[in-house]
Amino acid sequence: MEHLLYIIEILGLAVFSASGAMVAGARRMDLFGVLVLGLVTALGGGTIRDLLLQQPVAWVKDPTLLIVPTLAAAIFFIPVLRKAPQRPFLIIDAMGLALFTIVGTQKALNLPTPAPVVIAILMGMTTGVAGGILRDVLSGNVPLIFLKEIYATASLAGAMVYWIALCMHIDPMVSILVAIVVTLALRLAAIQWNLSLPVWNEKPPRE
Amino acid sequence: MEHLLYIIEILGLAVFSASGAMVAGARRMDLFGVLVLGLVTALGGGTIRDLLLQQPVAWVKDPTLLIVPTLAAAIFFIPVLRKAPQRPFLIIDAMGLALFTIVGTQKALNLPTPAPVVIAILMGMTTGVAGGILRDVLSGNVPLIFLKEIYATASLAGAMVYWIALCMHIDPMVSILVAIVVTLALRLAAIQWNLSLPVWNEKPPRE
Amino acid sequence: MEHLLYIIEILGLAVFSASGAMVAGARRMDLFGVLVLGLVTALGGGTIRDLLLQQPVAWVKDPTLLIVPTLAAAIFFIPVLRKAPQRPFLIIDAMGLALFTIVGTQKALNLPTPAPVVIAILMGMTTGVAGGILRDVLSGNVPLIFLKEIYATASLAGAMVYWIALCMHIDPMVSILVAIVVTLALRLAAIQWNLSLPVWNEKPPRE
Repeated sequence: MEHLLYIIEILGLAVFSASGAMVAGARRMDLFGVLVLGLVTALGGGTIRDLLLQQPVAWVKDPTLLIVPTLAAAIFFIPVLRKAPQRPFLIIDAMGLALFTIVGTQKALNLPTPAPVVIAILMGMTTGVAGGILRDVLSGNVPLIFLKEIYATASLAGAMVYWIALCMHIDPMVSILVAIVVTLALRLAAIQWNLSLPVWNEKPPRE
Repeated sequence: MEHLLYIIEILGLAVFSASGAMVAGARRMDLFGVLVLGLVTALGGGTIRDLLLQQPVAWVKDPTLLIVPTLAAAIFFIPVLRKAPQRPFLIIDAMGLALFTIVGTQKALNLPTPAPVVIAILMGMTTGVAGGILRDVLSGNVPLIFLKEIYATASLAGAMVYWIALCMHIDPMVSILVAIVVTLALRLAAIQWNLSLPVWNEKPPRE
Repeated sequence: MEHLLYIIEILGLAVFSASGAMVAGARRMDLFGVLVLGLVTALGGGTIRDLLLQQPVAWVKDPTLLIVPTLAAAIFFIPVLRKAPQRPFLIIDAMGLALFTIVGTQKALNLPTPAPVVIAILMGMTTGVAGGILRDVLSGNVPLIFLKEIYATASLAGAMVYWIALCMHIDPMVSILVAIVVTLALRLAAIQWNLSLPVWNEKPPRE
């Protein structure tokens, strides 16, 4: 179980770092900017989670967690690898979201004093989405997930399903699988059919 | 005293969350964006204070502090409730500023090793204004309070008055009341007569 | 050694605070904005480092570290002092970068359990550049160092040289001096001849 979560985390780090590198590239940043945006996207959510839970920041203790996303961002700096079409990229990013949601929820539940359920689910979402929010702020954009798209909602659903499965004493491996499928299904459906949350579309009462 | 501070904090959370939700609405964010901006505005200042003081983050231990601002932001998503005119809103926000300033100053003074006075006052200001700064950054604006308006200054005055009152062994309830009145008076006067701090209005020497 | 690092830190704080104040001035912020941007630029990198390493935040324990950059930013609010030409300012800023890089690397190596080398070097860079990144985000700019300029690279080189010198058991004072010279030389050469890192200059595959 521990091993599985670790492998899942490594995969998620690589995927999210590539996503940050691509945004940096789209803003014509230099090599340093590409690396920082890759690292922030990959490590930002987990770092905020660890700080909020007063836990040691994972990658400070285990440099592997730092080196994997550094390499993933650096590889994307090679021109030929950037020609990937957008669709597979979004699918990989959705996979990262599903993986990080479970890692974050599980870490909050694994504490010596397990976090309250509300907090555990929020930590799962934070792990999944906060890196992308930091990436957008650092590249001068309003975070995309505040505006439209079902992204955080897919993470929320995955974290809740995961917690319910654990409560029902379903086998951990199966719980993980079910939660991944739920997050992925929601996110991919949203991409496929352009689903969105309702938007506050009235004339604003105050600027 | 403990109870009173807790009630004050809950009130401040609701008010600030509504303020974040309204900014999110003005930027046409979706339901998730409205909730995040509400939560960040309400909880951001206190979270930064707790991290800087190496204290457990209050809302991680006590989900009530998370649920209140979530509900406050969600309620503001109901169209009819958004039609509130701007003036009462600014007054409520000024009340939130006054309340959070006292909560933050008191928390720094309540530590096992009380923080130095300068730090306690700064923590009061941080609790009062940092959430709003995060709200502005996340919604793609330069923080309003860096540009003009007497806002942080009202918080500074309130924190200083509160500390002086405590030093003079004035009854805590009276100290709180006096500090609230000072912050509110300064902030409301600034709103009423458009008072501002001096601005660096020369031609910039460097972009 | 301890004393020397402390004096170096104080100098760096003053220099970086002035840099933040000047950016705030260029954005026509008011006195509060100038002070906050000065403080964030000076203290931001060290604060992030201390939080990541789970150490007490230095300036919370020692208000001198807070008062020095406050005064440095306030002094720059006096019009006549702002007329400084840009070139000396960039040189002073380069000095701040060199100083903070060493302070940060040393602090990570000084922990009861010294941080891994990769982390120590990254903490040196974080101390050197993160304050400037926060300064740019808070003033509504995409961080300059993501776009071009050799800045973080000079910090990286300085931290690596410092660590190699320590490994070779070179006298600490000499190690510090060599690392400062390397960082300064790289940074000043970059300013003089407009050197840059390679930029991701292809048509972006995704916005």
